[in-house]
Amino acid sequence: MKLTCTQENFKKAILNTERVVSKQTTLPILNNILFKVEKSGLKLSATNLEIGIIVKVGAKIEEEGEITIPARLLGNFINNLPYGENISLEVKDQNLKIKSGKAKALIKGLPAGDFPLIPQKSTEAQIILSGIALKNIITKIISSVAFNETRQELTGVNIGLKEKEMFFASTDSFRLAEEKINLTEKNINLDLYKNLILKKENIIIPGPTLIELARIINPNEDSEVKISIEDGQIFFENEGTILVSRLINGKYPEYKHIMPKEYKTRLVGEKNLIQGAVKMASVFSSTKTNEIMLKIDAPEKKVMIEARSVEVGENSTELDLDLTGPSQEAIFNSKYFLDGLTAVATSKVAILLNNGSSPVALKEIDEKTGEVLENFTYIVMPIKN
Amino acid sequence: MKLTCTQENFKKAILNTERVVSKQTTLPILNNILFKVEKSGLKLSATNLEIGIIVKVGAKIEEEGEITIPARLLGNFINNLPYGENISLEVKDQNLKIKSGKAKALIKGLPAGDFPLIPQKSTEAQIILSGIALKNIITKIISSVAFNETRQELTGVNIGLKEKEMFFASTDSFRLAEEKINLTEKNINLDLYKNLILKKENIIIPGPTLIELARIINPNEDSEVKISIEDGQIFFENEGTILVSRLINGKYPEYKHIMPKEYKTRLVGEKNLIQGAVKMASVFSSTKTNEIMLKIDAPEKKVMIEARSVEVGENSTELDLDLTGPSQEAIFNSKYFLDGLTAVATSKVAILLNNGSSPVALKEIDEKTGEVLENFTYIVMPIKN
Repeated sequence: MKLTCTQENFKKAILNTERVVSKQTTLPILNNILFKVEKSGLKLSATNLEIGIIVKVGAKIEEEGEITIPARLLGNFINNLPYGENISLEVKDQNLKIKSGKAKALIKGLPAGDFPLIPQKSTEAQIILSGIALKNIITKIISSVAFNETRQELTGVNIGLKEKEMFFASTDSFRLAEEKINLTEKNINLDLYKNLILKKENIIIPGPTLIELARIINPNEDSEVKISIEDGQIFFENEGTILVSRLINGKYPEYKHIMPKEYKTRLVGEKNLIQGAVKMASVFSSTKTNEIMLKIDAPEKKVMIEARSVEVGENSTELDLDLTGPSQEAIFNSKYFLDGLTAVATSKVAILLNNGSSPVALKEIDEKTGEVLENFTYIVMPIKN
Repeated sequence: MKLTCTQENFKKAILNTERVVSKQTTLPILNNILFKVEKSGLKLSATNLEIGIIVKVGAKIEEEGEITIPARLLGNFINNLPYGENISLEVKDQNLKIKSGKAKALIKGLPAGDFPLIPQKSTEAQIILSGIALKNIITKIISSVAFNETRQELTGVNIGLKEKEMFFASTDSFRLAEEKINLTEKNINLDLYKNLILKKENIIIPGPTLIELARIINPNEDSEVKISIEDGQIFFENEGTILVSRLINGKYPEYKHIMPKEYKTRLVGEKNLIQGAVKMASVFSSTKTNEIMLKIDAPEKKVMIEARSVEVGENSTELDLDLTGPSQEAIFNSKYFLDGLTAVATSKVAILLNNGSSPVALKEIDEKTGEVLENFTYIVMPIKN
């Protein structure tokens, strides 16, 4: 194996590959990155046995071959190379020789034959999404995933597949985030997609897979992510990088029915102001319960965020919000309420309530028209008084 | 107690005071900030019994009084206030009432009478230094302080006081950093200083005190730090903030004689390049010893940084440096060598050696003249082969 490539391409590829590498493992080869050089170019692969990644690197190939190299060591070395010089790689006697400018290194490898197989996809992509859009959705729903949950299905994000819509949903049973994408002709490979939704109405993608996906997506405007869903696994492809992950077996909870269709009281206002008030109140709420109260006084047109605890004292902030509907009082866990505000991507937010003991929704507000947007919904259950 | 002040002043004062507050303590009042309101203004104080701080805050006083308030709680609350509105404070029944714009809070306090006394200085400042200069010195010497040392004196910075010079020195016995300041009339209160150095040739300031001092120094160009040295304690005053600390009892090691007067071999070059090469080499050095080698081949005019370990492989980088003097080989602990390079504040650095088993010096290079500057010296002991 022998090749040269630019330092920039190589660094970026190592960075993306390295993150998938297991941190602690009884199988030393899983700490390594697989280098595979064929006539077509260099491919780097890594896997933690849940998620696999394959990154193509543009390179001038002189000799084919393969080897596996410790990922962290390589990453630390590459990160400290002086900027700019190309990189040449050569394998001799199970060692990788690296040269770049006036720096050179020899790194001991392990045989490529011992590296676990990373699954190859057997179907074309059924769905094609904008990279930026997908990245934004992941940011918005990931905080509601239950990462330390014994119920496996809640450790993933549920993807509902309809003819013209896709739903991304996550819940840890205390709160729920859902985002809807409308699918157009550009987004689907029609026949393949029809076939897919005949067999599967929904799949569950592990949370960590989506975190990794959000990291590798190139945030260019035309960046596209091709998604291939197969039995038990899913492939994402973005600009030469393929991420493959197992899917979670199990039945995702039927969450749609807990999302109210209508709300009696509506508040609309600056997200930043509400966040500040909730954070202030959280300082005064008991550390055990994190309870804060939203108090809406319709006749007085007053909205307050309040908290008090016997140990430290009390706090209240009056919020300048547009209010329609009757008075309400609702108690929230401040963390869940804040996560919802953070997930809202617009500068204004709508808070929608029916009463203090039924689900409360946070939604986004169109910056231009001021109308409530219906694609994203964050539901949080008030705490009963 | 009753007053109003600007949010900006109050936030900054709380931030500076809060950091001195003990994090865990069996004495709950040490978690608090003392508010003391006299006709002249508001003073905030905190102490961890090693370091005390007093911050003056410009305020409109309506009523004198005092109270102590939990620091973290107050800091968290203040940090989330919407920007801009003034703050009004009032004490009622051992509670502090805070109002700012539409936010208000009531925080339970503890009686001011139970707060430990913070020492008051009994002499005018003997020394006055530029705030920026002092901050820079602390940054350069702090990494050589031995923070986890049973030898108390090494956990501090030694200040040598001469008629026209001050020396700041730190060492953990593996390396040593020293910076010299030339004292002019502007820097000393002549009679007081003369009196001082008759009694004390050096003092030892605890490392944490100087870290705190560096944080509170306002980095304006005309910012001045007034230093009063008394028996067993030291006072720093910078723009209305007073930091007081105990001094360390003990005899600082006689370090001057280990600093060579002359060096046979001199390397001069870009600090960044050398840092990169040392970091790359450190990846390949054994994690136990951190050994890297500097190889100077005078006839070939070649300078190399190298490392190798049986487990991972080897690395070498050729450095483009100005070289005068004979060939050398020296082995270093990469961490100590890197700390020295980081401490050097100029973009070029001089590496000065006599041989591989005697102290090696790093010094700064004048950006304009290219000459070696003599005020700062970092000494590192090579590892014997």
